[in-house]
Amino acid sequence: MFNLFWADESGFPAGDRGALYGDGLFETIRMHGDRGVLLSRHLDRMVRDAGRLGIPIALTDLRKVCTAATGRYLDRFSKKDNDRGWVLKLTLTRGEGGRGYQPGSGIRPNLMVSAGPMPALPASSGVIADFSRIPLTVNPLLTGIKSLNRLEQVMAAREIEGEVYEVIMADSAGNLVEGTRTNLLLKVADGWVTPPLKSLAVAGIMRQWMLERLRARGETVFERSVSIADVMGSHCQGLFFLNSVVGAVPVRRLAGQDLPVDDGVATIFNPLELLE
Amino acid sequence: MFNLFWADESGFPAGDRGALYGDGLFETIRMHGDRGVLLSRHLDRMVRDAGRLGIPIALTDLRKVCTAATGRYLDRFSKKDNDRGWVLKLTLTRGEGGRGYQPGSGIRPNLMVSAGPMPALPASSGVIADFSRIPLTVNPLLTGIKSLNRLEQVMAAREIEGEVYEVIMADSAGNLVEGTRTNLLLKVADGWVTPPLKSLAVAGIMRQWMLERLRARGETVFERSVSIADVMGSHCQGLFFLNSVVGAVPVRRLAGQDLPVDDGVATIFNPLELLE
Repeated sequence: MFNLFWADESGFPAGDRGALYGDGLFETIRMHGDRGVLLSRHLDRMVRDAGRLGIPIALTDLRKVCTAATGRYLDRFSKKDNDRGWVLKLTLTRGEGGRGYQPGSGIRPNLMVSAGPMPALPASSGVIADFSRIPLTVNPLLTGIKSLNRLEQVMAAREIEGEVYEVIMADSAGNLVEGTRTNLLLKVADGWVTPPLKSLAVAGIMRQWMLERLRARGETVFERSVSIADVMGSHCQGLFFLNSVVGAVPVRRLAGQDLPVDDGVATIFNPLELLE
Repeated sequence: MFNLFWADESGFPAGDRGALYGDGLFETIRMHGDRGVLLSRHLDRMVRDAGRLGIPIALTDLRKVCTAATGRYLDRFSKKDNDRGWVLKLTLTRGEGGRGYQPGSGIRPNLMVSAGPMPALPASSGVIADFSRIPLTVNPLLTGIKSLNRLEQVMAAREIEGEVYEVIMADSAGNLVEGTRTNLLLKVADGWVTPPLKSLAVAGIMRQWMLERLRARGETVFERSVSIADVMGSHCQGLFFLNSVVGAVPVRRLAGQDLPVDDGVATIFNPLELLE
């Protein structure tokens, strides 16, 4: 089991390893009423990636927490007169104890549960984006884990201002990998392209769902590196930001250059059909 | 200014960006009585690297906190009948607020102040070490910053067990860069070798002090990449772990192979001479 903390009544212990070393991971889940969009995928990812970090957590316990969180936060953050929903956040840390970086044995994890209102959704006509000056570095043993080590994304997000909705981060080879809070999906003549799992800081729930949905429709999806030329060149038929709270967001302008907008994929995602 | 938190009476706020995203940095300082070993260097590094992250903090305010921390923690963690001292830890985060990774403007930083007893010092005859299986990745814009993004070091520290004191992490090219909590210093025939600043996850206070001290003695120090062959080959005359709390620790056995032990450098560091 774990120690449960509710963000509206308690903070993190001073010795929490998540707070001290980023020793943990988190999930942000779009809720509508008492149900979550792709809830199982979020909780499965947390259990799986916690296991990769050596943090023990049971799926059944996480499910119980989601139910309790709904009872606690639903009325506060979800308006009855709209279906915009609310956002549930689970932050799981290794807990307290150990000697510096080295965790003690038998540590009990800490789970912080917080919630908030749905953010404003971007216009379906598309958003403005830019390239980040912060390179993305991904440890090959920690790929895809939505860990609490997000300083690179914070530094990149500090570049977002004015009309810019998101910035795209590249790896040391110059390949475009992901946004600060989004994965990338590119439409090309013979299908779709998205950077491969092994390159990703965060392996997004929406990315995986979208790839499965596209393939189920018989479309071809290539998981390969994406260069600036792939996106800015004439063979790009559309670029999308993928995020499990906002869905698929078309990019209409990138680094001052207009991109073709195809909103076909944006409408594939209907959150109300994906509630669990 | 900043919000001040004492670890013996308060935790981190639930919305603290350090706890949520590793958005902050820390210093661990060896104290003897009311003075700190190389205290100015620690505080200068925190101010400088906080500035690199865009977290405003004034040196004079940090100094006042150290004085207050001594009054609060000295009697609890420092025994009067020995000079082993105690350890002061400052954890500075960007504070609370913003939209996800993106910080709000005018955020007030949070400073958590904690303390503990001195750890046991390793035997002067040297320690046993091993190679880590966790590769080290360092963002070129965040090199050297003792940030709260330490998940790689935590994962590597989980490999330390039994008689092993420390494990050495290598970069993607296989160069040996640093231990989980130490920098590396190698003695060779024509001087000393240590990995260059641009490769380091943490630019240690002890590393910098030791390089200056060696150069002041007229010795040659090379800041260049260190390969496994450099350390395990016959031209290695000694390998040391550098850490500002424990000093220079000779490695007598690495990955099952005996290394020559030269304790000359270990005795250069006398903490009682470096109190401020």
